[in-house]
Amino acid sequence: MFVLAKFKKGNFNGKNTSFMITKKELKEINLLGTKKWRKMHQRFVVEGKKSVKEFMAQGFQQNALYSIASTPHEGAVLVTEKEMQKMSFLKNASPLLGVFAIPQHKAIPIKGRILVLDKVADPGNLGTIIRICDWFGIKYIIGSLDTVDCYNPKVVQASMGSLAHVEFHYLDLNAFFSDDQRPVYGTYLEGTSIYNASLPEDALLVMGSEANGISDKVSSFIDHKITIPRKASNGPESLNVAIATALILGEISR
Amino acid sequence: MFVLAKFKKGNFNGKNTSFMITKKELKEINLLGTKKWRKMHQRFVVEGKKSVKEFMAQGFQQNALYSIASTPHEGAVLVTEKEMQKMSFLKNASPLLGVFAIPQHKAIPIKGRILVLDKVADPGNLGTIIRICDWFGIKYIIGSLDTVDCYNPKVVQASMGSLAHVEFHYLDLNAFFSDDQRPVYGTYLEGTSIYNASLPEDALLVMGSEANGISDKVSSFIDHKITIPRKASNGPESLNVAIATALILGEISR
Repeated sequence: MFVLAKFKKGNFNGKNTSFMITKKELKEINLLGTKKWRKMHQRFVVEGKKSVKEFMAQGFQQNALYSIASTPHEGAVLVTEKEMQKMSFLKNASPLLGVFAIPQHKAIPIKGRILVLDKVADPGNLGTIIRICDWFGIKYIIGSLDTVDCYNPKVVQASMGSLAHVEFHYLDLNAFFSDDQRPVYGTYLEGTSIYNASLPEDALLVMGSEANGISDKVSSFIDHKITIPRKASNGPESLNVAIATALILGEISR
Repeated sequence: MFVLAKFKKGNFNGKNTSFMITKKELKEINLLGTKKWRKMHQRFVVEGKKSVKEFMAQGFQQNALYSIASTPHEGAVLVTEKEMQKMSFLKNASPLLGVFAIPQHKAIPIKGRILVLDKVADPGNLGTIIRICDWFGIKYIIGSLDTVDCYNPKVVQASMGSLAHVEFHYLDLNAFFSDDQRPVYGTYLEGTSIYNASLPEDALLVMGSEANGISDKVSSFIDHKITIPRKASNGPESLNVAIATALILGEISR
């Protein structure tokens, strides 16, 4: 599908860069914005020098690399700024864009703390949650099958390279909870204050969707309901799911 | 500038709603997306039933109110969905949009905990920070003069009505810190762990910009450098400013 970067590099003459990337190539990169295409080809897009380097450093298989001609990068196909903007999923394209293979993860370990997301829908929220997990040393994240795809370009962008450090699994939560032996902690608007609860080293922590919190189906598996106490009585009804995740992981990491 | 809602309401006949809002009115609402226009007219836009009601409940002076004809609202000018989408700053317009007067705040109290933002630039971050302050009972927020405007429609939206509960002041931080007697705590990538520091009841907490953290100018006023310890050694270099604010306010509110 993708022409390898090194193959095309030789064509660059430093002057005429307009046709360094074919229309087909450009279209295929744009199509990686869709979940269907990503799933079919098992590839995803990473933008920005820092993020691209992070995925490289973590050993992700690189399928293609593009950089704008004014800031060339080793092994990258050089493209014009206009071409990069056409490829990019960002409002303002970065000078470097990489296409990587979606990794095949091994099974989830039966020990340790794992974050479970029940239908988190917003790409920005998911990316931020991944970054927070990376900060607090949570390596494994499970998403329900209806949670937004972690290889969505907006998620990758918001995770700022942290997606390279975590293992993200999409599972049928019903089946997973039925099998897993760890106690399940769920975050609700009401429950035991996180300041009075303590999460064991081996535990599953569930965060619900932005719109509806934890679904009824998943609620039936929750052993412990926890909550973040609101200090202001007339304050907001709830917190953003990424903020709530940060506060809980912060508290259990003290 | 704005035709009062009650004045126009009588014109609605339930069938022909296409011309309920004049082009001039529509243009003026769109112009409220600019800081210049908001400042000149001392008005801002609030979208969504829940948020509009929150500003009403908190006694904000309402200048105009529009609702789509299919879900009429008391006292609102009825408009078509198409007109509402033209007025709206959202991708998908809400059925209710209000124009309110920017409030005149009294002086900042010399006691209590105050959050100070040094050049926070992203509207989404600022809105989220306002919501977090509301949750943790921080009533006063000071923004540097180059912090994004809290009446920017995107900020109002992200704050989800919480802007109605806080008092936001824009000040020259140099002058403010020179005058104020409270100890100043600043959040840095290095400093005393927030788990070992404690913030007095009367204190200023400074958060820096997304790109550069606390500026050198503001740094000279910081009495105590604090930090959120990162648990994973190879984790991200920093946290998003809204996440960091949540973690610090969460910790000092325990």
